[in-house]
Amino acid sequence: MKLATLPNGTPDGQLYVVSRDHTRCARANDADTMQLLMEAWDELAPRVDRQYQALNAGGGVPFDPAQCLAPLPRAWQWLDGSAYESHGKLMDKVFGISAGGDKTRPLMYQGLSDRFLPPHADVPLPSEEDGIDFEGEFGIVCDAVPMGTDAQAASRHIRLLVQVNDWSLRKIAPIEMKTGFGWVQAKPACSMAPVAVTPDELGAAWRDHRVDLPLHVTWNGKPFGAAGGYDMGFGFHELVAHAARTRDLVAGTIIGSGTVSNENYREVGSSCIAERRGIEMLDDGEPRTGFMAFGDNVRMQCALPDGTPIFGAIDQKVIKA
Amino acid sequence: MKLATLPNGTPDGQLYVVSRDHTRCARANDADTMQLLMEAWDELAPRVDRQYQALNAGGGVPFDPAQCLAPLPRAWQWLDGSAYESHGKLMDKVFGISAGGDKTRPLMYQGLSDRFLPPHADVPLPSEEDGIDFEGEFGIVCDAVPMGTDAQAASRHIRLLVQVNDWSLRKIAPIEMKTGFGWVQAKPACSMAPVAVTPDELGAAWRDHRVDLPLHVTWNGKPFGAAGGYDMGFGFHELVAHAARTRDLVAGTIIGSGTVSNENYREVGSSCIAERRGIEMLDDGEPRTGFMAFGDNVRMQCALPDGTPIFGAIDQKVIKA
Repeated sequence: MKLATLPNGTPDGQLYVVSRDHTRCARANDADTMQLLMEAWDELAPRVDRQYQALNAGGGVPFDPAQCLAPLPRAWQWLDGSAYESHGKLMDKVFGISAGGDKTRPLMYQGLSDRFLPPHADVPLPSEEDGIDFEGEFGIVCDAVPMGTDAQAASRHIRLLVQVNDWSLRKIAPIEMKTGFGWVQAKPACSMAPVAVTPDELGAAWRDHRVDLPLHVTWNGKPFGAAGGYDMGFGFHELVAHAARTRDLVAGTIIGSGTVSNENYREVGSSCIAERRGIEMLDDGEPRTGFMAFGDNVRMQCALPDGTPIFGAIDQKVIKA
Repeated sequence: MKLATLPNGTPDGQLYVVSRDHTRCARANDADTMQLLMEAWDELAPRVDRQYQALNAGGGVPFDPAQCLAPLPRAWQWLDGSAYESHGKLMDKVFGISAGGDKTRPLMYQGLSDRFLPPHADVPLPSEEDGIDFEGEFGIVCDAVPMGTDAQAASRHIRLLVQVNDWSLRKIAPIEMKTGFGWVQAKPACSMAPVAVTPDELGAAWRDHRVDLPLHVTWNGKPFGAAGGYDMGFGFHELVAHAARTRDLVAGTIIGSGTVSNENYREVGSSCIAERRGIEMLDDGEPRTGFMAFGDNVRMQCALPDGTPIFGAIDQKVIKA
């Protein structure tokens, strides 16, 4: 099942089903918003899925991802992991902040969730001096998860997969990180690709609770990275269980993978500028690549090996707020 | 103006105005929920205030704080500061994590906001082994704040004051803090006292954007602390401006002060067990006070010098989840 949210003048927008090939869509008959669907998944999802199957056979209206809001335009909770060890190790080495010392516990912070920016919207940020960076990630959306749910049981609560750009301000990040309190100023609102999908849409590429597909990132039209999503040190089911250790997770909680990264980042590239700068610091003694300038574009997308689109593209420009 | 939320079967409950002496209340005619009031404060608050003034003259129904939900039963954003330097310095010294090094920047993290527990509800937590602790705090609720708002302008967005118990799991806190990512497992849902008030209800005790009143904390009926709220290193207007540096703040954002604490904590006591344990470590070389056990009660309240109640009491028991 593939879902998107189109604007209707309300903060939560209108839920649509989207055809597998992303060419057509239809207003969801059985759930007005993604949040309502997440709150009553067992009851509503089978009905929405029937509409999705019918849409794949024909009908609907043309789907325009440029009109979409984020699939969940706002969420009660966004917990972002940092599950790619190659990224964590490099950041630790370069910035001297050892976040990744304990391999028995996933890294995770709670971030801004009152809005997720539309996939094609301009992104207003206050200053280029803050070190504007993108972070290409995958994420999951779960229904309500009771406190204490273990990883195996948590896997059944992973209802949808999403693709996220976790905008980051790199000059502020280490200052906030050193306090131990996590990020507030360094993590403004994230963006989300237009289409959320059930895990079965990935077929064999949904493997061990990970997205086993490359995330293609371009910066101002130039290829920047195509790291594969599989190399997470913890699967999404383990991230859900970690989050639910001392709290009930509200329906519609979104959990992120952290910047997609592979050990061979010199070959496949990176999903954020900070990682490329880290490689340059290792190889050349100093970073050569600057951060984003106002007017810069970033595009992120992911497809099945046969070319079938999955989440659609994040394709946006940073502008002065 | 004084406001509370009573249950009506929906997650956001029904907004009520509460008489100044907390004896009577009336269903708010002009805003069904606190969230709606925060989203249209300029339009709705004058009307709700007229109803509040009329209620003070008479009428309404008996007010029972034990029936209340949190004034905002859920919020899109909860940003908790740690603005009391005496607390920060002690924690730094005892636990060796130097969060408070930079006095030019407030400390702040983003926490769980999809639910705030009712003031008299039992608090289900998974294990006594996690080091269950309370944290008595003051907080503010703001309407929408544009990105880049400075402290002076931010003061006009402080619409309501609240009193919060920021439940904390102390065995997990330093583990998460050392990662730099802030707290997820160590910070389960907070509780909120039943009544939210406009700053004018404090009279002269709303001073320099701080609550200049003692927060009385008892643990199992025994006095534990009565620290005054004034000693914040940053006022709430500065906390709002800090939060809004790189993001628009959504209406209904709640910002906390951090554990209320004074330099003379040996005389006035503390608002959390961790601080008392820190004092014991300094004075006696080891902590003597344990954390909370299931069945333990904590009560927190604050009144004007003439005895007028402000927020009502948080009065609750921790239980096994």
